[in-house]
Amino acid sequence: MTTRFLTGITPSGIPHLGNYAGAIRPSVRSQWGADVDNFYFLADLHSLIKSQNPAQTQQSTLEIAATWIACGLDTDKVTFYRQSDIPEIPQLSWLLTCVTGKGLLNRAHAYKASVDKNREAGLDDDADVTAGLFMYPVLMAADIMMFKAHKVPVGRDQVQHIEMARDMAASFNHIYGQGQELLVLPEAVVDEQVATLPGLDGRKMSKSYGNTIPLFTPREQLRKLIMGIATDSRTPGEPKDTEGSAIFQLYQAFASTEETASMAKAFADGIAWGDAKAQLFERVDAELSPMRSVFDELMADPGKIEAILLQGAEKARTVATPLLAEMKKAVGLRDLRTQLEVKQAKETATAPQVKQYRERDGQFYFKLVSAKGELLLQSKAYASGKDAGAAVKVLKSQGVQALVALADQLESTPSTPELQQALDALVVAHAED
Amino acid sequence: MTTRFLTGITPSGIPHLGNYAGAIRPSVRSQWGADVDNFYFLADLHSLIKSQNPAQTQQSTLEIAATWIACGLDTDKVTFYRQSDIPEIPQLSWLLTCVTGKGLLNRAHAYKASVDKNREAGLDDDADVTAGLFMYPVLMAADIMMFKAHKVPVGRDQVQHIEMARDMAASFNHIYGQGQELLVLPEAVVDEQVATLPGLDGRKMSKSYGNTIPLFTPREQLRKLIMGIATDSRTPGEPKDTEGSAIFQLYQAFASTEETASMAKAFADGIAWGDAKAQLFERVDAELSPMRSVFDELMADPGKIEAILLQGAEKARTVATPLLAEMKKAVGLRDLRTQLEVKQAKETATAPQVKQYRERDGQFYFKLVSAKGELLLQSKAYASGKDAGAAVKVLKSQGVQALVALADQLESTPSTPELQQALDALVVAHAED
Repeated sequence: MTTRFLTGITPSGIPHLGNYAGAIRPSVRSQWGADVDNFYFLADLHSLIKSQNPAQTQQSTLEIAATWIACGLDTDKVTFYRQSDIPEIPQLSWLLTCVTGKGLLNRAHAYKASVDKNREAGLDDDADVTAGLFMYPVLMAADIMMFKAHKVPVGRDQVQHIEMARDMAASFNHIYGQGQELLVLPEAVVDEQVATLPGLDGRKMSKSYGNTIPLFTPREQLRKLIMGIATDSRTPGEPKDTEGSAIFQLYQAFASTEETASMAKAFADGIAWGDAKAQLFERVDAELSPMRSVFDELMADPGKIEAILLQGAEKARTVATPLLAEMKKAVGLRDLRTQLEVKQAKETATAPQVKQYRERDGQFYFKLVSAKGELLLQSKAYASGKDAGAAVKVLKSQGVQALVALADQLESTPSTPELQQALDALVVAHAED
Repeated sequence: MTTRFLTGITPSGIPHLGNYAGAIRPSVRSQWGADVDNFYFLADLHSLIKSQNPAQTQQSTLEIAATWIACGLDTDKVTFYRQSDIPEIPQLSWLLTCVTGKGLLNRAHAYKASVDKNREAGLDDDADVTAGLFMYPVLMAADIMMFKAHKVPVGRDQVQHIEMARDMAASFNHIYGQGQELLVLPEAVVDEQVATLPGLDGRKMSKSYGNTIPLFTPREQLRKLIMGIATDSRTPGEPKDTEGSAIFQLYQAFASTEETASMAKAFADGIAWGDAKAQLFERVDAELSPMRSVFDELMADPGKIEAILLQGAEKARTVATPLLAEMKKAVGLRDLRTQLEVKQAKETATAPQVKQYRERDGQFYFKLVSAKGELLLQSKAYASGKDAGAAVKVLKSQGVQALVALADQLESTPSTPELQQALDALVVAHAED
């Protein structure tokens, strides 16, 4: 069976070499796996939680789309789309919202982290927390379930969200599935060995350290940046440690095993830092250069990216549109011409039963019994079965509204929510007879 | 100017006479006001918060649609649609979610009532509270803003939700409007004199008392119900009080002033309860009978209602589709071919400025200053303006990523979030030059 993978990409800023080696490259390579069907999407609705700068949102979407395509995403093979082009996703998100306990969302790490931060600062728990941050996990669940994705490659910090998505799918299936798995329970796929690259100062390459090498910076700028990487002060001819060397680690991330072994030997032989950096630069540039050309071309022609994304959305919607229709039908948002599903209404756990019977006293009675077997309503005695039947008919057609009309024929019963619900269900089941 | 009214109708169970006189009839009558443009919708997405019975959801939608049409809603004049047929609504709802403080939602009455109930029962605050209940006010705001409705007729209990919708619209306009009123701030219209009818037992007619008269119950059943209304024990010939008489109040709700005066006289003259009830029955039936025929016809032909609703959705979407497109553009979810709005990015409050200058020492410098005028970054001295300019160029094209490359040309600066944000904005503004 084909396994469907779904990868979300949040458009936020220009990617750097670390993003490339740690996330983009492995993800793009995985598109060629056997028996896999890959969906990749730009999570631009999610990006609105953090960015309220429209120009930046647009620019990031453009850059990230261009980056992934330049890095080799085969948009004919995979399905590559922009989240906001799929109107079915927010619709499914609402259906999931209605089966999700608020308590579940209270426990989301990202939300809790904001609360903790506010508490430390002596602020209200929810100060500056938007509903967007709070609802993030539900939208994410909709992203995944919209395409019945089996596997979702995520970072460790996102595992909880996948578990929450599973909870929502299970809850939806339980309430509306009638034994069928309407929504697929997704699994997180965590790459335990994510490559992290050192940055210009030797610390982990990260935007927050300001030590990054932009992925598609021009060749000469790339050279300048690489030549500026911090090293120790060993002179040419002195043997150099590969261990802990940013130059070596970066080289290794781009080179073959043979090339890496040869560089290790050069380190032991005392290669000059300048020469090592020059080799590193050429090796990195050899890999990036063809991609950079594609990237530059795409950035100069946003219409091409737009067309690719719209085509991707069309492809994605061939899955999303029928699935949403199925889900809407499951919850009762239906074409009114659809036959009411008698079987469904009758088999629901809450379906009550009216029982008509004759006692030893020779008189006729009826009672309403809940699915669990509780007595909800008990009639007084009728002289004939016909009279009892007539009363049952009124009850079935009028439900709650019959209680007063039949008041003198019923043993007094407290008007509990259970009784009302049962009577409502009775009317529905009756309408379908 | 035409004022747009939006009325939401939650499909939940069969309406009774009290619903008719208190809500449906006045609302339907209001469709004929001058200079008004009326939108009515079946809030089936909202109904999912309370009902997880699909057959019931479908049945209620059918019945309520048939009821309102039978009661005289002119679906050619007004726009009458089903919420779930407008995919733009949940999309707009997400955009609003991202500008809504979670704290605002914490204060919603309906949610707070659930929390209070849980606390009294010694349960978790959010026990059995769904995210749907919590997010209700945002979806409701989207319902309203999707059509730029000016006025929303609501019950007193819903006034807070309209105020919350105003907050969301104001917040959206503030963040994304650039001085324009993208979303209309709606006003609640509360009818202070809602007619309530007495039920079969004299208490207010209400489903929860089980004392209702179903609106379109068959004529004979209607007669039976009305004949069974509780009265005092005054005999024929004895004068009767109109004050506090369910029979009189019901009669008044359906009769003209003259008819009512004449009935009051009959009461004073000692009309028999049986006769008063018979007159009441005929008066009510005279109003309902033609509607009941339409209702029965419609219920027998769900395809007709479906067609009316689909036509209504099409009409509604001529407003919703372009409006959503406008809103998406405002937040940055754009056709990538759209020119980035240079003006916008430059004029945003967070736009930083790079200033290049020459000091008295004859050397050249630059600095990065936030919109508020704070110094974010200060260069060291350059011998030539050209060198300073080259550094500025790198900063503008690389942003944060240039900090390390330029490290030895900058006075040491802590890498604050403000600095990062300013540099991100700088890159965006630069990309647009």
